[in-house]
Amino acid sequence: MRIIVQKYGGSSVATVKRIQRVAKRIVELKDQNTAVVVVVSAMGKTTDKLVAKAHSITEQPKVREYDMLLATGEQVSIALVTMAIDALGCEAVSLTGAQAGIITDNVHGKATISEIHTERIMKLLNEGKIVIVAGFQGVNLEDDITTLGRGGSDTTAVALAAALKAELCEILTDVDGVYSADPNKIDSARKLDEISYDEMLELASLGAKVLHPRSVELAKEYGVDLHVRSSFNMREGTIVKEEETLEKKRIVSGIASDPKIAKVSVLGVPDRPGIAATIFGALAEAHINVDIIVQNVNREGINDISFTISRDDADHAVATLKKLPQDMCAGGVVVDDKIAKVSIVGAGMISRPGVAAGMFRALADEGINIDMISTSEIRVSCIIARNRADDAVSALHRAFESDLA
Amino acid sequence: MRIIVQKYGGSSVATVKRIQRVAKRIVELKDQNTAVVVVVSAMGKTTDKLVAKAHSITEQPKVREYDMLLATGEQVSIALVTMAIDALGCEAVSLTGAQAGIITDNVHGKATISEIHTERIMKLLNEGKIVIVAGFQGVNLEDDITTLGRGGSDTTAVALAAALKAELCEILTDVDGVYSADPNKIDSARKLDEISYDEMLELASLGAKVLHPRSVELAKEYGVDLHVRSSFNMREGTIVKEEETLEKKRIVSGIASDPKIAKVSVLGVPDRPGIAATIFGALAEAHINVDIIVQNVNREGINDISFTISRDDADHAVATLKKLPQDMCAGGVVVDDKIAKVSIVGAGMISRPGVAAGMFRALADEGINIDMISTSEIRVSCIIARNRADDAVSALHRAFESDLA
Repeated sequence: MRIIVQKYGGSSVATVKRIQRVAKRIVELKDQNTAVVVVVSAMGKTTDKLVAKAHSITEQPKVREYDMLLATGEQVSIALVTMAIDALGCEAVSLTGAQAGIITDNVHGKATISEIHTERIMKLLNEGKIVIVAGFQGVNLEDDITTLGRGGSDTTAVALAAALKAELCEILTDVDGVYSADPNKIDSARKLDEISYDEMLELASLGAKVLHPRSVELAKEYGVDLHVRSSFNMREGTIVKEEETLEKKRIVSGIASDPKIAKVSVLGVPDRPGIAATIFGALAEAHINVDIIVQNVNREGINDISFTISRDDADHAVATLKKLPQDMCAGGVVVDDKIAKVSIVGAGMISRPGVAAGMFRALADEGINIDMISTSEIRVSCIIARNRADDAVSALHRAFESDLA
Repeated sequence: MRIIVQKYGGSSVATVKRIQRVAKRIVELKDQNTAVVVVVSAMGKTTDKLVAKAHSITEQPKVREYDMLLATGEQVSIALVTMAIDALGCEAVSLTGAQAGIITDNVHGKATISEIHTERIMKLLNEGKIVIVAGFQGVNLEDDITTLGRGGSDTTAVALAAALKAELCEILTDVDGVYSADPNKIDSARKLDEISYDEMLELASLGAKVLHPRSVELAKEYGVDLHVRSSFNMREGTIVKEEETLEKKRIVSGIASDPKIAKVSVLGVPDRPGIAATIFGALAEAHINVDIIVQNVNREGINDISFTISRDDADHAVATLKKLPQDMCAGGVVVDDKIAKVSIVGAGMISRPGVAAGMFRALADEGINIDMISTSEIRVSCIIARNRADDAVSALHRAFESDLA
């Protein structure tokens, strides 16, 4: 049985009309002799509205109840999409995360899928039915509803594609694919036909927004081919797959910027073993993802440690650090949330020296100061002032235009 | 452990302010050394909005998906109420119908509770936690979400009270209790301090709206004392309990009218055994509740059968009857939906003849024609033209005023 998993984002199911169009597209795929499993997000701004409701009740909603609340958004979507398919004369069955057998750990709001019991989905597919699964949610071993956090529906789709050994996971969204830069800001940005998991991972982590890094990581781990394409037209989008199977490796595939970050500096850290482990261990326990870390030796025996995190986590990070023994940060904790990260990404970068230097030169020519630098084999990222982020992306796209073409 | 089950209707949790007030009331009850289980309906008009959404997708939504959709309404409420209790520093846990162990049959949209696995609720109560359960919903043995239909949250509350052996089931609503007639229409209507299950059952069936008959039936079956009272004030409401424990039995306790009915007449029914069984068997299979049945012998060997049903079921009933062999209703099927039922109810009626005659006299004096009559030991009902229903209730309240006082 040829199985394809499709995922429709919130904007693709935002209205009744769109839901009906999505239903038609699902039925068309099913008619191509394909078993179809569809993962659906909450309609349009539903999740935001539910979040606002929770916060109108209390500033700090209990995480378990927060998940109970948010999970209703996707449940509404799957019911309506299934009704719309049914109205087209095709049989479909909706499943909540729990009913779809998506088991997670206990971390409410940011749960990780631990296993998927596919029996029920496989049974329905074998009966010739289309299966519509609520994205973003699962159930822990105590039978409590959990949510997977940001990008959760992508993760659901990829995890299901892996568990069901699907041929492909289509991510249907409101853009035509993955671009070399944000097409809303860079006129010359162009759609990539294909890109490797690693490149996509870097771009996703860097705020390209099309795919959540967790889902790309999962796709890479299980070798699930992704097809990122528009739900509003039938044009081919971008295929995300193994690097070895790419037709050509570009030196620079894309340029991304992420304005939603903050830099936290822990000042006056004593220079003895285990300090960094304590600091980042505490942050990890608080489920705060740290991105770039820089340690400066200021004066003898005293260090400053700076790191970047999602801006949403800044308050939580500071609160977590303040709970550490006082001598760990004798100089205090400082947050700078007026920064952005701009990055260039390309699988061909490894074999071509001087790419990083070219990036620093392009930023310098634009008069943009670099605060922190971080590199990987296929990426160079710079932390700069947020109000220069758009200028930086433009300058970099110009500088690497010949590579991107 | 002293357990009290409270049920809050949709209007009691319609806004954030009301949810916070409900939370305060729950915590106050818990502070009285009481284990509290709360059943909550969907907020305000939520269910209506979800129904409208389903019907904007398709005229005849699939019942399984309809339940999947509607169940989200209560899920939102339980999460928000639990958050509000948590904000008051008290520990609460929300449970969907499935999580609360409420198992039903497979009749989507009108499911019947078959059993309740109380282990999880009892465990939470033993841990000192308040338990907030989604009303109106359960889960069938296939793990599909079901809804209980109209009055479902009352039924959930009473069933839980029975299963948990609760001391009392409080039904908190937007009225002060059960009245001798609709207080919005009859100025002299007065609140009853207590009423028997049977009287309440008749009044509930007759459209008194305060309690759904299914929940009263269940309360009677398991001997659960109900306290119907306002969620907006702390005044005592109406206790519904065993007739033997009532302080006094009134001849007439209440007067009710139900405008939401229709009369279906099956004309030209052959006069042979088994015909009525076929007709009403088919209706029962279609899950249509029939109320009053009248059979007239018109001419030799040919009968007309008329019956009343909920107006919502009228189309469904006609469709069901049209599927019967043609000779069963040679004269066709006629629907009259311009009718209403007015009734007088009283446990003391049994021992006092002439009550029915008094009712007919009062209606005749008002110039109101009686179309059908139905009586039980504690009730007399008349089918009349709907546009005279209010006049009828006024006239009857005046006629039986001394009994009601």
